[in-house]
Amino acid sequence: MNLLADQHLNEPLLDHREGQLFLTEAFKVILEEVLCKGTDVNEKVCEWREPEELATLLDLELREYGEQQYQLLQRVRDVAKYSVKTNHPRFFNQLFAGVDYHALTGRFLTEALNTSQYTYEVAPVFVLMEDEVLSKLRSLVGWAQGDGIFCPGGTMSNMYAMNLARYRAFPEVKLKGQWALPRLAVFTSQESHYSVMKAAAFQGIGTENVFKVNVDDRGCMMTDDLSEKIELAKSQGAVPFLVHATSGTTVQGAFDPLEPIADICDRQGLWMHVDAAWGGSVLFSKEHRHLMRGVERWESGACSGIQLLECNFDLLKRCHSADATYLFQQDKFYDMSLDTGDKSIQCGRKVDCLKLWLMWKAVGSQGLEERVDRAFAHTRYLVEKMMKREGFQLIGKPEFVNVCFWFIPPSLRGKENSPDYQDRLSKVAPVIKERMIKQGTMMVGYQPLGGRVNFFRMIVISPQLSYQDMTFFLDEIERLGNNL
Amino acid sequence: MNLLADQHLNEPLLDHREGQLFLTEAFKVILEEVLCKGTDVNEKVCEWREPEELATLLDLELREYGEQQYQLLQRVRDVAKYSVKTNHPRFFNQLFAGVDYHALTGRFLTEALNTSQYTYEVAPVFVLMEDEVLSKLRSLVGWAQGDGIFCPGGTMSNMYAMNLARYRAFPEVKLKGQWALPRLAVFTSQESHYSVMKAAAFQGIGTENVFKVNVDDRGCMMTDDLSEKIELAKSQGAVPFLVHATSGTTVQGAFDPLEPIADICDRQGLWMHVDAAWGGSVLFSKEHRHLMRGVERWESGACSGIQLLECNFDLLKRCHSADATYLFQQDKFYDMSLDTGDKSIQCGRKVDCLKLWLMWKAVGSQGLEERVDRAFAHTRYLVEKMMKREGFQLIGKPEFVNVCFWFIPPSLRGKENSPDYQDRLSKVAPVIKERMIKQGTMMVGYQPLGGRVNFFRMIVISPQLSYQDMTFFLDEIERLGNNL
Repeated sequence: MNLLADQHLNEPLLDHREGQLFLTEAFKVILEEVLCKGTDVNEKVCEWREPEELATLLDLELREYGEQQYQLLQRVRDVAKYSVKTNHPRFFNQLFAGVDYHALTGRFLTEALNTSQYTYEVAPVFVLMEDEVLSKLRSLVGWAQGDGIFCPGGTMSNMYAMNLARYRAFPEVKLKGQWALPRLAVFTSQESHYSVMKAAAFQGIGTENVFKVNVDDRGCMMTDDLSEKIELAKSQGAVPFLVHATSGTTVQGAFDPLEPIADICDRQGLWMHVDAAWGGSVLFSKEHRHLMRGVERWESGACSGIQLLECNFDLLKRCHSADATYLFQQDKFYDMSLDTGDKSIQCGRKVDCLKLWLMWKAVGSQGLEERVDRAFAHTRYLVEKMMKREGFQLIGKPEFVNVCFWFIPPSLRGKENSPDYQDRLSKVAPVIKERMIKQGTMMVGYQPLGGRVNFFRMIVISPQLSYQDMTFFLDEIERLGNNL
Repeated sequence: MNLLADQHLNEPLLDHREGQLFLTEAFKVILEEVLCKGTDVNEKVCEWREPEELATLLDLELREYGEQQYQLLQRVRDVAKYSVKTNHPRFFNQLFAGVDYHALTGRFLTEALNTSQYTYEVAPVFVLMEDEVLSKLRSLVGWAQGDGIFCPGGTMSNMYAMNLARYRAFPEVKLKGQWALPRLAVFTSQESHYSVMKAAAFQGIGTENVFKVNVDDRGCMMTDDLSEKIELAKSQGAVPFLVHATSGTTVQGAFDPLEPIADICDRQGLWMHVDAAWGGSVLFSKEHRHLMRGVERWESGACSGIQLLECNFDLLKRCHSADATYLFQQDKFYDMSLDTGDKSIQCGRKVDCLKLWLMWKAVGSQGLEERVDRAFAHTRYLVEKMMKREGFQLIGKPEFVNVCFWFIPPSLRGKENSPDYQDRLSKVAPVIKERMIKQGTMMVGYQPLGGRVNFFRMIVISPQLSYQDMTFFLDEIERLGNNL
């Protein structure tokens, strides 16, 4: 090694001062583009470009040599500019919306601290914090004890539950695999989240062993049919082990009736999992928590936008542990039960508790309750207005904050009995959607469901919403669809 | 609804100005505590507290009412203060270290934009960007085409691979489940990551169907034994389908010999997955990529700290799709092949490509190569110094940037043949570790492995490292352990 190379290697590759300056400048861009302009009703929700044009605008190619700081700052600005503003008050497209500045602060801090939540050694604050948040959520459910874990999304929570339920019924599965087990059967409603099917495929259970239980008009599981499907599965030689109920379905926002489902699970010895990844926030509200009556009888639940799994058995560790000796040394100098990482299936695990904890500290349980109650009140308001306007036809009265409706353009009104009505109606939502995205005025989703042709699903949850936004929404649907 | 309540409901719940002010103040705290003090060698790596004391200091309890902004800012400061400084130049404890300001900017922007990467509609920039990053990485592997996806961690990548390999061998598994398949067999080295066992348990394959292949002293898979284990599995009636090779094992940093493993996989018709979640960065280096010779013959690979899965078949979608109609409408106005979400098992999926893309844009392929080469050079330097110091005994010569060694305190030197030597040596690392954490001077991991008692594993990857940090490391181990 020559002296020059040697000196070169002794200099850190990274200039902290320059790096921090860049981060500070980029923070200003984020503040300006994403948080100021991105939440301003006078600005667009999205800046639509055709894929080829966008690829060119962004100059995505990764090259041999790096770029100057000013060029990189422009890239930050461009990424922000052409991304969808999900914080915008007129973004109604997904089951998330709006910005919470305390939660966002928690997320920035999480990213800056960049740790992995497996041991007390590397994540002391977050091991204790996760425990506090989980136990607080357990008390909302009505449990004095239990176990839980934050998950990277609702799908993973559902997968955890499927694995736990299978493990309780057949502990030998961990060692021997599904191969040594009988054919299993899972039960879930026709309108449950598609991750149940993904989980069944991924975990070796098989999608044809997911029995879809009929729903009523609102999208709630029909318990008579649940009993019948359980008998059907048994008659085919399959062994039922899990009922996957939903509190807040993806499209209609329906709540399965937990009490009668729990009764059936008790009688049949089945694990009741409640997927409340969408609807779980009602537990914060004294007025609305009745929607989840019976929740305390679940064996496991995926709760709220928070994405976590609560389980009332001490199974997480036994079911998931692999005892890596380089992480979970048994000769540590502190209480090794604080090394909670082996409960997870991810091993290295991102910190998910801080954003929720900081938001909760900021607004209190009372503030969270207010948000839930307001979302219901706003939904009620929107529904009332919608019922008074010609051309808006609700798909039932919302149980939650999903408002599902058809917009019937003038040319189709009164033509319900014409033979091509359904076909023509099915083409309305896609055209309105295309127009709104290309103009960037707002975003809302649509889909067909069961026998119903394409209808809109409007989501009313952002804490930024005002009545004006809802009036705008109705006016805008009319403006975009009136000539169809 | 009375007028007062009505007015109240018309006001957005959130004050953007106040929120942005808080975020800006918190950003300053993050800059100061996490990025300035947290990377300063004159400051501690960790601020150890016993769990009970820490819980009290942090006042974790979540209450009915929210707190003032100044209190919340203090909480941000406290969380930073008591968290481990993983960006600190003397954090050698995990397989991650150091801060990259462009990557961190990408992460902040990702969090602020808060989207989910399933459709072009809600994530236009990131759909195109992920595609560019994946195709660039494929060209590093030596592929002209293929498919891929970013994953939330190396464990998930391994799980994806297990599912793809099983699906290729038995496509009926998706529908019917593992129950309808014969007993399967997976092969991996004794020193591969523990997520292989977790995956086998989680995906219904069973941990006893993971055949652990013997390794040589360095930790590399022995291919003779691989062939024998395959025959053993067959003789037990199991059907081999997957060889899980490792490029960069967790403890020793060993690289399995990919060419001969690929030959065996070819002959036996097995899927070769390469878990390069740790060692994959060598592909950036002309000097070191030979460690992964044969990589282009993999069927799938989890590559680098980046955590993604590359797959040379068009299987991702067929294997994982569930066709949710509310997301993947078939009547959209743009090219629906851009809605890549159904390839994933997570459904809602965090954006993972931006941080890597921005860092790559900032330093270029050449800059990434330099980082890899420097880490190797620093490792060589540390090893040379270590060999010259009494009391440091290497566990073989490192293939990668993991430096594994015993520290032999003066009282044990020359006592190798005494009957309690191994027992006494095994107690050295835990005591040194306890002392370093309580004093907060640095962090490094230890573990037993195979027949070897507790030894240290020092990781040399941070771009911030200088020779001084390595000299400090050696001095500090001596200081903490010399009286043992």
